[in-house]
Amino acid sequence: MTYCLGIKTREGLVFASDSRTNAGMDQVSICRKLHTLVQPGERVFVLLTSGSLSLSQSVMTLLKDDYQSGQGLATAPSIYEAARCVGDQVRKVGLLDREALERDQVAFNVHIILGGQIGKQDPELYLIYPQGNPLRATQDSPYLQIGETKYGRPILDRGLRFESTTLDEAAKYALISLDSTMRSNVLVGPPVDLVMYRAGDLCIRHQCRLAENDTQLLTIHTMWERALRQAVQSLPAVRFASSGDAT
Amino acid sequence: MTYCLGIKTREGLVFASDSRTNAGMDQVSICRKLHTLVQPGERVFVLLTSGSLSLSQSVMTLLKDDYQSGQGLATAPSIYEAARCVGDQVRKVGLLDREALERDQVAFNVHIILGGQIGKQDPELYLIYPQGNPLRATQDSPYLQIGETKYGRPILDRGLRFESTTLDEAAKYALISLDSTMRSNVLVGPPVDLVMYRAGDLCIRHQCRLAENDTQLLTIHTMWERALRQAVQSLPAVRFASSGDAT
Repeated sequence: MTYCLGIKTREGLVFASDSRTNAGMDQVSICRKLHTLVQPGERVFVLLTSGSLSLSQSVMTLLKDDYQSGQGLATAPSIYEAARCVGDQVRKVGLLDREALERDQVAFNVHIILGGQIGKQDPELYLIYPQGNPLRATQDSPYLQIGETKYGRPILDRGLRFESTTLDEAAKYALISLDSTMRSNVLVGPPVDLVMYRAGDLCIRHQCRLAENDTQLLTIHTMWERALRQAVQSLPAVRFASSGDAT
Repeated sequence: MTYCLGIKTREGLVFASDSRTNAGMDQVSICRKLHTLVQPGERVFVLLTSGSLSLSQSVMTLLKDDYQSGQGLATAPSIYEAARCVGDQVRKVGLLDREALERDQVAFNVHIILGGQIGKQDPELYLIYPQGNPLRATQDSPYLQIGETKYGRPILDRGLRFESTTLDEAAKYALISLDSTMRSNVLVGPPVDLVMYRAGDLCIRHQCRLAENDTQLLTIHTMWERALRQAVQSLPAVRFASSGDAT
């Protein structure tokens, strides 16, 4: 299983991913799902992957080969075109593997989040589907998720706003969303990879990997749980229309 | 879609359900999913249903017919046996409808939560699967959900404890869990039905139905969102190991 999340606010982008991968419940290992491609001062890409690890590895291999030979993401004129490059490679891997997988009733499952900035353009954030088509994050829907998306979503719906959420706050929301998912699904787990990209940086200044026993991860887990309990206590009791002795 | 939730704590039981039902995205209506069967001073049952409305209606019809003729839940010697009665009716409906449904690739989908108390026995809470077998809530897993379960789960995992969560608090957690789910999935919606059952009552003292514009629902929605945002602000900023100018 996997949980990856990209957030777009007025100030920039935040990316977060877990690192647990499994083939069945009894074969669990660690794998990095956050990748960066950077030409400092010119272009920055962050990619997050979910789905079959074999497929996402193939897509990333093709993308990096192109990039290193000065093609694909290295020359894409916009993040939209970069998302199209990713989609092209997803389709290329589809041509290689989809038929053989589907013959054995295995879905062709690879989802990719791509975000970044090129030159003076605004930062953008996309999700690329297994069919290769891209979806853009918008001001109304300022985040994109792949993998185990539901546990970590309510906190984002309540709190994230494109205009008003600061980048520091967005990083906290990302960690809480990851922590909520790890709490409820054991197949999503640390290390957590996190990148905070401030618009205009055109390099990766803020990146960290939080291991299972990392102090920050433990602190946010404990403080958040305590804050939630206090918040519940601060709410008024439910009033029941009933027989006099109702609370 | 549906979201129903049962909670068991030391002090008693809480039940909550939404009321939205749909056949496809373009046919949405309202339907009560919380049902009570009570012999005051003797036995109390609360049932929550999800899945195909046709199937859950059939199961409830059979259960109520039995109950009114003094059989089934009216005489079950324990909540475990009552859960078995529910499972028997699920299987009876399975004999009636499963083959015809599966011929058209429609799953036989009906899930039921049953909770209550009989005489001086402890209150108990069960989930009955479409196959008719029952699952009991435990002190370690003090809640059971059916339907759209994931959005509303993180808050329960963080906050609910069998020994220490009061019944008033459990009712608040139930409303927040419902509200989180309604926020993230438009196919789960009000009115919200809520029952709070205190161990030993042997009748329904605390029940309410909160409509879409109900003040309590709006209050908890607004106050909870504000409390969450404040809680996020109170957390320390994420520290990135990076190039000097990191936050």
